[in-house]
Amino acid sequence: MSGGRQPRYALFLWTCCLAAAEGGKLLVVPHDGSHWLSMHGVLQEMHQRGHEIVVVAPAVTLHIKEGAFYNLTRYPVPFQQKDLESHFRRMNHEVFEKLPFWKNFFKTRERLKTAAALLLSVCSHLVHNQELMTELGDEHFDAVFTDPFLPCGPIVAKYLSLPAVYFLHGLPCGLDFAATQGPCPPSYVPRGFSLNTDRMTFLQRVKNMLITLVQVFLCDFVYSPYVRLASDILKTEVTLMELLSYGSIWLLRSDFVKEYPRPIMPNMIFIGGINCAYTKPLSQEFEGYVNASGEHGIVVFSLGSMVSEIPMAKAMEIADALGTIPQTVLWRYTGKPPSNLAKNTKLVKWLPQNDLLGHPKTRAFITHAGSHGIYEGLCNGVPMVLMPLFGDQMDNAKRMESRGAGVTLNVLEMTSADLSKALKTVINDKSYKENIMRLSALHKDRPISPLDLAVFWVEFVMRNKGAPHLRPAAHDLNWFQYHSLDVIAFLLAIVLTVVFIAVKSYMFCCQKCFGKKGKAKKAPKSKSH
Amino acid sequence: MSGGRQPRYALFLWTCCLAAAEGGKLLVVPHDGSHWLSMHGVLQEMHQRGHEIVVVAPAVTLHIKEGAFYNLTRYPVPFQQKDLESHFRRMNHEVFEKLPFWKNFFKTRERLKTAAALLLSVCSHLVHNQELMTELGDEHFDAVFTDPFLPCGPIVAKYLSLPAVYFLHGLPCGLDFAATQGPCPPSYVPRGFSLNTDRMTFLQRVKNMLITLVQVFLCDFVYSPYVRLASDILKTEVTLMELLSYGSIWLLRSDFVKEYPRPIMPNMIFIGGINCAYTKPLSQEFEGYVNASGEHGIVVFSLGSMVSEIPMAKAMEIADALGTIPQTVLWRYTGKPPSNLAKNTKLVKWLPQNDLLGHPKTRAFITHAGSHGIYEGLCNGVPMVLMPLFGDQMDNAKRMESRGAGVTLNVLEMTSADLSKALKTVINDKSYKENIMRLSALHKDRPISPLDLAVFWVEFVMRNKGAPHLRPAAHDLNWFQYHSLDVIAFLLAIVLTVVFIAVKSYMFCCQKCFGKKGKAKKAPKSKSH
Repeated sequence: MSGGRQPRYALFLWTCCLAAAEGGKLLVVPHDGSHWLSMHGVLQEMHQRGHEIVVVAPAVTLHIKEGAFYNLTRYPVPFQQKDLESHFRRMNHEVFEKLPFWKNFFKTRERLKTAAALLLSVCSHLVHNQELMTELGDEHFDAVFTDPFLPCGPIVAKYLSLPAVYFLHGLPCGLDFAATQGPCPPSYVPRGFSLNTDRMTFLQRVKNMLITLVQVFLCDFVYSPYVRLASDILKTEVTLMELLSYGSIWLLRSDFVKEYPRPIMPNMIFIGGINCAYTKPLSQEFEGYVNASGEHGIVVFSLGSMVSEIPMAKAMEIADALGTIPQTVLWRYTGKPPSNLAKNTKLVKWLPQNDLLGHPKTRAFITHAGSHGIYEGLCNGVPMVLMPLFGDQMDNAKRMESRGAGVTLNVLEMTSADLSKALKTVINDKSYKENIMRLSALHKDRPISPLDLAVFWVEFVMRNKGAPHLRPAAHDLNWFQYHSLDVIAFLLAIVLTVVFIAVKSYMFCCQKCFGKKGKAKKAPKSKSH
Repeated sequence: MSGGRQPRYALFLWTCCLAAAEGGKLLVVPHDGSHWLSMHGVLQEMHQRGHEIVVVAPAVTLHIKEGAFYNLTRYPVPFQQKDLESHFRRMNHEVFEKLPFWKNFFKTRERLKTAAALLLSVCSHLVHNQELMTELGDEHFDAVFTDPFLPCGPIVAKYLSLPAVYFLHGLPCGLDFAATQGPCPPSYVPRGFSLNTDRMTFLQRVKNMLITLVQVFLCDFVYSPYVRLASDILKTEVTLMELLSYGSIWLLRSDFVKEYPRPIMPNMIFIGGINCAYTKPLSQEFEGYVNASGEHGIVVFSLGSMVSEIPMAKAMEIADALGTIPQTVLWRYTGKPPSNLAKNTKLVKWLPQNDLLGHPKTRAFITHAGSHGIYEGLCNGVPMVLMPLFGDQMDNAKRMESRGAGVTLNVLEMTSADLSKALKTVINDKSYKENIMRLSALHKDRPISPLDLAVFWVEFVMRNKGAPHLRPAAHDLNWFQYHSLDVIAFLLAIVLTVVFIAVKSYMFCCQKCFGKKGKAKKAPKSKSH
């Protein structure tokens, strides 16, 4: 927005930021999986700006690997690469099992419990690794950059007394609202897993309220072990809120083109779409596929970095549907190829998703509705067929569907015909393309790119040793003080006392006045008897 | 923050913004006084970016004048320049009258009523000027840019069906929170005129709650006439909330270095400090004063654009105090010079406040704590002696004082010695300079300058015809729906019904079981008799 002239004010700022950008030291405590992949861009930019970056990760990981722009410090964990991979393969297959609601609920809970236990042990092996922790302390970092989805990073930051920057899409069970002191009225802010939009019927509001009432207990089994771990390591009793609210700045991979507008807090910085920041030209292989697709163009199909194969019966159903459209489908799939695969469908072990979505010949995107995929579809303006599998994916899908930018399918219930119909709808019904293009334009119409914004705030925390001026005083109140219950009780007590005294006085006066008269009347009466 | 490399994402954005910056048309409905002066910078920048700007203003104004970068359209009002000036002169003198609390309260109310009636008549003469309104309608503006402090601009915007961008410091009586649907817990968000900070004692929280309960009625006399005017002009019943919530984007001249952190809404954009954006070199006259001040430097003294003279007794008291410090004092004062004026004090009819505050020889700033002055002191890192007079100035002063960046004086109660002591304190006690420099650095440490940010969002609303994706669904709920009272009542009714049925069933069972036994026992008894 600078035009030709640079206001003096901006020059002030610039001097300050450039000065601080020299030689900072950042400690990164990442999460494996797509969470790590989207952090990548920020670290690369930080490195280019002259900061030294140290990433601590367990010895066994899925996606965290050596990188040119950071030093990777590994610590031992009590499992092997094959254990981790088989764990996730098993999880992937279980996701596709069709079970009755309650059975599914408990099975999901069990699955999450197993995963949580595994990840907790990873964290425990980091914070109990005395040698490594001492080494990290000696490095004198400026800040910790972490995803607090599981609060291992916050424990490390608190232990090392370093300010922390959080990088996340959101926390489950409303923990992000609670930890930032962000009000979250259940009347128009849809709760996770509710499938509500921001405009709800009465019964949807009832559902939203019921989820609000129980959500605090739903995540307890995942988070309470971290509280115990933190209390143990920090040698003082801490609460989950103390742990999560430790972050100075919350970089939220979120944007109000996807999310519904709601109250936010000053230390929340919205950087949704940061993962679309960089695109590269397509490789020869993919350029070849796209060019060969002719006038019909291509459809990109991926179920995310965690799910690369699915049960054969489902794969065959999907393959059948993909054969019914004239577009070339590029499907990221590592399993055994379905026997009914049509000629238009190319299976690839990996695909440059964002680059392909950015190609003008891309007509649709079949996605599991993970937050990264949603924002890549949004940035590039590609209508979506949404097949959510777990976590926040159902809600992500609902948001895109409610805005007319995609069609949601239940991957367990859908038939081949449903998928075929959905694909033809988003490709041929012009309203889907128009809606996603409108959303895409709004999403990209920002005063500063999300990557630059994220880098600015990481450096802000590094140079200012946190951001205490953005921390609301609400953190120092307990729940009844926060809701002014003590004040209300006090004022009510005064009102009631005044009313009580007034009534008593009135009655006393009445008694005095009328009582005397009564007596006066009675007296003569008795006398007259 | 861009470094050497420009991410592709930012290029996307840039193309979009530059394209839209061509030839937009902006209608400006300003407020006279300092509110207008701070809008100036945005209009200048908008003009430089190729937009056509039309400012509508009454024929009689204090500060709104012809400008090179906008077309000024005047409309007739039923008073003369001398009436307006004498009105404000009278107001200025009344501010310095020392009265008992209640007398002062009612006198202030009366004064505000007179001012409000005058300004309402200005608005009425605009919106009832059928010829002008038709002309404005025919111009096909892209948006209205207005200060909604008195909601004349919103009426014009609604009448012309144009999106509106608001530019303001805040609204009184919590109307800004109410109109944006921003939650505002009285437990830690201090209310206007409370003089509380964000950390309150129990009794301060009681005071805050009491103000919360009554504030809605306090402003009614100012705003309800606008609601009647709007309903009349728009030919439909509107509420104050509908009128104020019409703004797509709220550009708030506010910043969390001055304000306490609190919940905000996605369409609030914080551009505090925008008025410090441009500085010019000092004129020869002022350069001369500064150079002649020697090692002691200067003190800048201004009570704002509205108060340029004060009663003689008070002026003499102040002049006396100013003579006790070694600094040269530049005092903006248009009244008769006090006879005891010391040699170090120079009276000037006008002073380039921001440029003087930016001079390294400036040691202190005596200010009435208007929002503009506060931010200019903050940007330039100058400790302040705060002499609040009316409106939000007491609260502004409290915020600076609570952060150790200034000393507040009650201008009516203070003696010459108090002012002298306060000046010596902020100049000689290093903590004041250190605190204001720390705040100043934080205030200027932003990813984008407030002026660029403001211009971006005005253009955003122009090119996107508003910002409906940032409007919370809460606007469509009534108050009991918003607070989920209907849902709570429904759930309570279910719980009570279930409890009632359970208790009844239990009692019925008991009666059946024990009742029979009882009867069974009784029966033989009766038989035995």
